Amino acid sequence: MRLRNKPWAEEFINEHPDVILPNPEQCKGNWATVFGNDHPIHIEVGTGKGQFVLGMALQNPDINYIGIELYDSVIVSALERIVEANKPANLRLLKVNGAKLQEYFAKGDVSRVYLNFSDPWPKARHAKRRLTHEGFLSIYESVLMDQGEIHFKTDNRGLFEYSLVSMNAYGMALNYVSLDLHANMPKDNVMTEYEEKFSAKGQPIYRLECQFK
Amino acid sequence: MRLRNKPWAEEFINEHPDVILPNPEQCKGNWATVFGNDHPIHIEVGTGKGQFVLGMALQNPDINYIGIELYDSVIVSALERIVEANKPANLRLLKVNGAKLQEYFAKGDVSRVYLNFSDPWPKARHAKRRLTHEGFLSIYESVLMDQGEIHFKTDNRGLFEYSLVSMNAYGMALNYVSLDLHANMPKDNVMTEYEEKFSAKGQPIYRLECQFK
Repeated sequence: MRLRNKPWAEEFINEHPDVILPNPEQCKGNWATVFGNDHPIHIEVGTGKGQFVLGMALQNPDINYIGIELYDSVIVSALERIVEANKPANLRLLKVNGAKLQEYFAKGDVSRVYLNFSDPWPKARHAKRRLTHEGFLSIYESVLMDQGEIHFKTDNRGLFEYSLVSMNAYGMALNYVSLDLHANMPKDNVMTEYEEKFSAKGQPIYRLECQFK
Repeated sequence: MRLRNKPWAEEFINEHPDVILPNPEQCKGNWATVFGNDHPIHIEVGTGKGQFVLGMALQNPDINYIGIELYDSVIVSALERIVEANKPANLRLLKVNGAKLQEYFAKGDVSRVYLNFSDPWPKARHAKRRLTHEGFLSIYESVLMDQGEIHFKTDNRGLFEYSLVSMNAYGMALNYVSLDLHANMPKDNVMTEYEEKFSAKGQPIYRLECQFK
């Protein structure tokens, strides 16, 4: 994602502490208090401009969603969307590093992780940065409930090939694979910005669901 | 594959017992005698018209290949090719049912199984007939050496999606996945008849390598 400098971002973020939580470390193990209920928590790591996580929150009011995005200049776009949608009660954003989820979630806090159109890091020497590298899988496992799931979509063939091998090697159960999601579009599919762009060009969208055993 | 009645097939098959072995049950555990050496044995289940298995045999003289095909009217096409190629010493055909491999191979006789463009059997009620169904995986495991591999190619998206899930569920290690083999064509790739036909139409060819643990 291209990063633009947005000098107004910090102020706008600070104006909405009910969406972008200012002290996320304090939420660890206390998410039911944050949301005011004990509904399942689904997180999206690398939430970008927020179209997916907002769409999911509106579609599924009985699930709590948390979008995680590190960059001010990106997360403000998600924040704008969410403010325009009148801040659904089941949606929050965390402006934190996805590699440090354990600082914000206790084991079992999360019941599903979404990864959408993550950076493919195509060079072999950058494999550790891919969000489906075993290092990240281990992080997700440490915050997910038992048998918690990862749902992953991408247009990037190389990343999807890598992810299938990586998840299998980690010992995860592969529950579902689609190599052309839009050929048999699920009714409840919420598209990301990237998904709209790449599928409009005729590129296949890959999707999988997998689960820690 | 369309089956044509070929009344001359049986006679032609009987004329070449050095290619299509007439008493394959007797080879079980004795393949080194059949080939006159103890080179590794790779089998192709559903060998069709034989272009792949013949190409592999010519490319790799230190590996013994066995093409398995049930139908007279199909296997004669493979036999014709092989006779034209002067019957490579490292190649045989078996006119038997792939579901009965244990009658012809002892545990450890085979070091690799190839599956190429197998019938997709798209209806859910026919899933057991797919050559990557757990029932068939169990048969391959019973004739393969420890850590033996399956190499699988297809143009059929549904069958490939199914196979990824099935092999993972069986506990196999997924060593390699390509979702567009011809985008980065391996130098030693031997194409099947179907592969030439479908890739010429621009359809992606899917390929995987997996291994019993």
